[in-house]
Amino acid sequence: MTQQKISQKGITSGPFHSSKKIYEKGSIFDIEVAHRCIELSDTKTSEGEIIKNPPITVYDTSGPYTDPDYKVDLEKGLPKLRKKWIEERDDIEKLPHLSSEYGRERLKDEALNHLRFDHVNHTPLKAKTGKCVSQYYYACQGHITPEMEYVAIRENQQLKEVKEKYRLHQGETFGANIPEKEITPEFVRDEIAAGRAILPANINHPEAEPMIIGRNFLVKINANIGNSPTTSSIEEEVEKAVWAVRWGADTIMDLSTGNNIHETREWIIRNSPVPVGTVPLYQALEKVGGEVEKLSWEIYRDTLIEQAEQGVDYFTIHAGLLMRHIPTTIKRVTGIVSRGGAIMAKWMLHHHKENFLYTHYDDICDILAAYDVGVSLGDGLRPGSIADANDRAQFGELEVLGELNRRARAKYVQTIIEGPGHVPMQAIKENMERQLKHCDEAPFYTLGPLTTDVSPGYDHITSAIGGAMIAWQGTAMLCYVTPKEHLGLPDKHDVKTGVITYKLAAHAADIAKGFPGAQLRDYAMSKARFEFRWKDQFALALDSETAMKFHDTTLPDEGYKSSHFCSMCGEKFCSMKSTHEVRDMAKKMEERKEVFKESGGELYL
Amino acid sequence: MTQQKISQKGITSGPFHSSKKIYEKGSIFDIEVAHRCIELSDTKTSEGEIIKNPPITVYDTSGPYTDPDYKVDLEKGLPKLRKKWIEERDDIEKLPHLSSEYGRERLKDEALNHLRFDHVNHTPLKAKTGKCVSQYYYACQGHITPEMEYVAIRENQQLKEVKEKYRLHQGETFGANIPEKEITPEFVRDEIAAGRAILPANINHPEAEPMIIGRNFLVKINANIGNSPTTSSIEEEVEKAVWAVRWGADTIMDLSTGNNIHETREWIIRNSPVPVGTVPLYQALEKVGGEVEKLSWEIYRDTLIEQAEQGVDYFTIHAGLLMRHIPTTIKRVTGIVSRGGAIMAKWMLHHHKENFLYTHYDDICDILAAYDVGVSLGDGLRPGSIADANDRAQFGELEVLGELNRRARAKYVQTIIEGPGHVPMQAIKENMERQLKHCDEAPFYTLGPLTTDVSPGYDHITSAIGGAMIAWQGTAMLCYVTPKEHLGLPDKHDVKTGVITYKLAAHAADIAKGFPGAQLRDYAMSKARFEFRWKDQFALALDSETAMKFHDTTLPDEGYKSSHFCSMCGEKFCSMKSTHEVRDMAKKMEERKEVFKESGGELYL
Repeated sequence: MTQQKISQKGITSGPFHSSKKIYEKGSIFDIEVAHRCIELSDTKTSEGEIIKNPPITVYDTSGPYTDPDYKVDLEKGLPKLRKKWIEERDDIEKLPHLSSEYGRERLKDEALNHLRFDHVNHTPLKAKTGKCVSQYYYACQGHITPEMEYVAIRENQQLKEVKEKYRLHQGETFGANIPEKEITPEFVRDEIAAGRAILPANINHPEAEPMIIGRNFLVKINANIGNSPTTSSIEEEVEKAVWAVRWGADTIMDLSTGNNIHETREWIIRNSPVPVGTVPLYQALEKVGGEVEKLSWEIYRDTLIEQAEQGVDYFTIHAGLLMRHIPTTIKRVTGIVSRGGAIMAKWMLHHHKENFLYTHYDDICDILAAYDVGVSLGDGLRPGSIADANDRAQFGELEVLGELNRRARAKYVQTIIEGPGHVPMQAIKENMERQLKHCDEAPFYTLGPLTTDVSPGYDHITSAIGGAMIAWQGTAMLCYVTPKEHLGLPDKHDVKTGVITYKLAAHAADIAKGFPGAQLRDYAMSKARFEFRWKDQFALALDSETAMKFHDTTLPDEGYKSSHFCSMCGEKFCSMKSTHEVRDMAKKMEERKEVFKESGGELYL
Repeated sequence: MTQQKISQKGITSGPFHSSKKIYEKGSIFDIEVAHRCIELSDTKTSEGEIIKNPPITVYDTSGPYTDPDYKVDLEKGLPKLRKKWIEERDDIEKLPHLSSEYGRERLKDEALNHLRFDHVNHTPLKAKTGKCVSQYYYACQGHITPEMEYVAIRENQQLKEVKEKYRLHQGETFGANIPEKEITPEFVRDEIAAGRAILPANINHPEAEPMIIGRNFLVKINANIGNSPTTSSIEEEVEKAVWAVRWGADTIMDLSTGNNIHETREWIIRNSPVPVGTVPLYQALEKVGGEVEKLSWEIYRDTLIEQAEQGVDYFTIHAGLLMRHIPTTIKRVTGIVSRGGAIMAKWMLHHHKENFLYTHYDDICDILAAYDVGVSLGDGLRPGSIADANDRAQFGELEVLGELNRRARAKYVQTIIEGPGHVPMQAIKENMERQLKHCDEAPFYTLGPLTTDVSPGYDHITSAIGGAMIAWQGTAMLCYVTPKEHLGLPDKHDVKTGVITYKLAAHAADIAKGFPGAQLRDYAMSKARFEFRWKDQFALALDSETAMKFHDTTLPDEGYKSSHFCSMCGEKFCSMKSTHEVRDMAKKMEERKEVFKESGGELYL
């Protein structure tokens, strides 16, 4: 046995609390869609009756890592779930070698052998000349792909049967078009064809499980990972990715800016069950030693190809920030806070030229279309403070993003639009409305927004408030913010806190939108709570471990996991315990209704 | 020197980071209003110019504990700030002894000597017969009290001069009546007289610094403290109170349910600079050994008097839950989740009688009016799950609370109305609208609401989302929720997390309402951020300690506190650093405008 390049020890795997991995078969295609099925214990009524509680199936981003039958092997990478689907469409060709010069150089460099993923794909896939391989293209042609059926099944979470059994609050959709009962493959196709949703699925990332981003689907969240110049090992970065998806990240963005980011990215992509996004500009800047003025279209172009052939599913591209916007930022309190935006502004002023991402935008789209890489149009001028929210700079750029969205669609590139940032609550809605208007309902992808600037250390919360609100109003994906925002690089604990916080914000928005079945997990949780089924509460929690730990802090004994109170109110003051007694008493009264009618029944009127 | 009954060692005191305590004099009365003044360092421009940053004055709930000139002495209690004001109004008499039988018994009991606050006031104050002492009464008579001038000065935060110097987003007030520029004592009086705001100020709690709760003022937050049957010492409980107000609690509710709650409460009130609330029913239930059926009006009445004479500033009273509401809760997912509500429901069913808090409501109001104790009308039927939100039970009770509000006003009792609970985002607004309608704009005081049930361990966040939204829409005070909600009794760390989380939610709402000057702290923070004044960022943060700790985790050296980047992006990728370069470049261009016009100036069009 050869020595392992990467330790597998630090990789978190294993099933979730009281849950099993289940696979649902497709009806159009031969596919198996992974869900997490949470098994619940029985209800015991006060009369001693036993009532079964149906299991709850939930959306599962964790990939094979939570399947106990799957043996994690980072050196091999995840199974290539989509390989056959891609090949069978017969629109692709296998290239003889990597197209990117930089990619070939890194591959040749023997000094990197010890860092390199062993099974690097030397012969990436690309669309055949004259063919188009994007999910958007297929949707526009009226085709349903296996990817589309996969996301339809995934979004439904097997809730069809149980969904109507409990009281459901009517959603407020703000003009969205959310199906009342279920998501069909046809609906998925139509939403993609309308440009209202994207299914990021690079043909060189067959390991990813299909997922969809659009206002008429479940709200998605992204977790940023990546090393910085100070830190960290490949093992740590892969674990951060696995860790983030375990807790619920629907996509991860690798924002590495340190050494060996090419090799690190390969490990991440090969082991990521969710789409991976990047900001190629960061790597391009590394290639010129961090000297912004040395950036060029040629270097950037090679980086796009390099990353597209590795399998990156979407690129953030700051093509909407133009020369004419720069003067509008001069009086801002916090100037340009987007890294990519600041880099391009500097480049433009140095060379006294228009943003090359804008001038070469059609070339960019041609590259992206050939691999089905989505474009996430970066908001280089997003406000970095409450004071700068909704200003001329921000909305000026948004209009250009609208133009770029239309140009991407013309080339069948899937597009999402990035949004703010820092925005006070009363100014959030205008962001959503302008985005829908200027960008023809392309999915909006916002960073929070943070609703106040004054709480560093708690910006996962200041931004979850804005995030929940804007997601309710129509934002399709939220980029998480961790407690370390504005202060430093997040560690694993911060990543988890950020993911869970955004997961709960997204879920609150799904309920508010009235997404079919979104409220079922809440119902099951509250029913378990009322019935003192503590273990079921832990199983249904977004973060079972923390819920259990908090409970056990004061009442650690096993017996307390079935006790009819917790340490918050204690036994005598537990309202839920009292309510059960009230119900039993009320029932008895009902039985003796006649007696009460005589002696004070009017109280019940 | 006699031995101390209580250790002072565990009490947190001392000034805030880079801040000093300042006292602003009144112009009508001889009063001194405490503020916290945050001192900021200078801005150094890239040209080497030094520009002074004015200090920022912020609302300060921490009391004398953060004044370095004040020597904490729990055995003596806090200075009696309001004593003279109360006495000078000459509407009060000194009672010969405690009116509560229970209070007298406890005082006589020598076994309690070691627990007892030494300077217990044996001769409490009460309104003279025929006189009324409530702030509401004075306001209705057109009088401005020193308390009213105090809160006017306090709400203004000395921002008059700086307030208009920076860009301010227009607020959205939902029909509220927030002054555009400043809060005057006349405005305070008129709002109290209209019943739209209350100034909780028991004449037996002269230690409390006046504060106001109303939709046209800064949003307030309450922190629940109190021991439970399992825990905790008097020292610990006093420290929890001091700790909660240090981080920003505007009121504290002592929800103790264990032993010696009478004595513990005395220590808390004597040392609390903020109004203290309680739920007297809890103590009444303790007095009958936890046996609900043994509760009676007589025991409850004596408890009200006992606590009123100790100085409790407001009581939660569950008088709106009536017999006829009980059947509407039977089909709920989580029944009755209010402790007080569950107790009263059980009592009613057992005795087959109407809620004695309702039948004796006028007697209750008479007692409260004699001490100026406010009533917080408890929502015994608040929803405990998303499924139960906005149901017939909840809104049925709300209408009764409206009736009780009017009856309290008739007796010059200050009133606030309690609200939910668990409510999905799209259903929040209906709560606020119905409350305003049925309760004649009496201040609304909500618990969150939690916007999803599925994230135990993070319910400070699920509820901060709902809390920020409903406070923006008009809720006057938010009751905090800690991370331990639904799981166990919060510890000190949880109390702090809950308070800071609610502080940021309340602040986000103040900005959204357009409260004058609310945005200034954000502006100062963002300016400090953009200028890499790290220490100023820490000083301006709601939680300086955590912000500093997070920053220092990766960059601990002193030198990094003035460095122009942090570990999140590193030096090369710091957008703010780049923006400064962009600005310098843009300035140079401006200087050579003519040259550029010739060679590409059209880019700026």
